[in-house]
Formats: sequence, structure tokens, C-alpha cells
Amino acid sequence: MGDIFGLRNFGVNLTRLAPGGESALLHRHSKQDEFVFVLEGEPTLVTDVEEITLSPGMCAGFPAQGIAHQLVNRTDQEAVFLEFGDRAAGDEGNYPRDDLEASLRPDGKWVFKHKDGRPY
Amino acid sequence: MGDIFGLRNFGVNLTRLAPGGESALLHRHSKQDEFVFVLEGEPTLVTDVEEITLSPGMCAGFPAQGIAHQLVNRTDQEAVFLEFGDRAAGDEGNYPRDDLEASLRPDGKWVFKHKDGRPY
Repeated sequence: MGDIFGLRNFGVNLTRLAPGGESALLHRHSKQDEFVFVLEGEPTLVTDVEEITLSPGMCAGFPAQGIAHQLVNRTDQEAVFLEFGDRAAGDEGNYPRDDLEASLRPDGKWVFKHKDGRPY
Repeated sequence: MGDIFGLRNFGVNLTRLAPGGESALLHRHSKQDEFVFVLEGEPTLVTDVEEITLSPGMCAGFPAQGIAHQLVNRTDQEAVFLEFGDRAAGDEGNYPRDDLEASLRPDGKWVFKHKDGRPY
């Protein structure tokens, strides 16, 4: 949503996560901070440390190089939440449970590779 | 709230604005982008262009060097909203209706001066 207003320093998503859905693969960023705020439903915050069921009004923040995380909807109701992330140059995505590494190119596009460096 | 989680690239406030309250003086930033999302109540978005009454679920974004803005609560109910802003180095605050200029020091503290340069 930030793009609508011409924001360039960070991005804002209003995400509607269907039952059974996952917001992303379990991941952490090297430079980008992230923040989520739950508006509806009870998504589960899954990290490489623990799992927590969230509810409306709860929030969580993920500093760069912190714990890996994802939101999963294990209920039969839609979950709705706001996601914020800055656009730090040279950011990389690390996926501890998947054969995937991501890097942000200078033109703002993400490049995805296997962990041994082979491109997808 | 971002500080609680150790976020450094942007800040997050959950603001409760009492009836008659103003979130800030009318202002714009030179480098910082800002975003607000209304959770409760009907705060009025006042800008140097127009005024808009917001309601829960509505949002607004203010790119650096864009229109000057503030939120004012003209109702008799509390207004609650989320505020986001990045922490761009060298940011300055411009207040078109007040004798005030603000500049962000390298140590993260704001310095406020009259428009003729005299310190407060």
C-alpha cells in the first residue's frame, strides 16, 4: 500500500491469508527489518525458536539477522494483517528449511538461487 | 513498538489521540516517509491541501518532501492509529504554519530552531 502514496523507504502490505496459507517460507533478512500487526483472525507465528498464536491487536517485529519467521493460518477463518519492511540496499533472504537463498539486486528485483549457488 | 523488537530501520507507534488532540504540528519530512493506519475512531487528516475524515481501516502515506500533514481528533471519542516512519539519516522537519524547523542529529536526537536559526 505504501507504493500508492509514493513511499520509497519502506513497503506496506495488507495481507489476507486463507485457511491453510503461509505468508512466506520460513526466512530472515540480512538488512531489512520487518513488522506485522494482526487485524483479523488468528494466524500462527512460526519461528525457528517457537510458535505463537496471534490475535487481533497483537504485533511482532523481526530485526535483520534475527530469528527466522513466517505466518501460517491453521484456522478455518481468514487472517488479515499488515506487513511492513524497509528497503535496505544489499538485502539478502536466508531460508533455513529450504534450498533457497535470495539477494536483492540494485534495480530492486530479487534473485533466487539454490544454496550451492545454482540458479533456479 | 518497533524498539521493543530491536528494529532499527524504522519506528512504529500505537497512538491514542484524545478528543481535541493533535498528533503533531502540521509538518513534512525532507527524507523520512511516513504511513498511518486507523484502528479506532475518526481522526481528521489535516494537510496543507485538504482535510479528510478517516475511519477504521483507512490509511494514508506521506512521502518525504510531500504535502504537510497532521492528525487531529475533532470527535468526542478516542482515536487509535498506527504510525510508521523510517529513520533516514540527515532528516529535517518543516512546519509551514509554525516558527519551527527541526533537524535530526547523527546521534538520533532532534534539534529544534526558529526559522531564522535561533535555537529554542
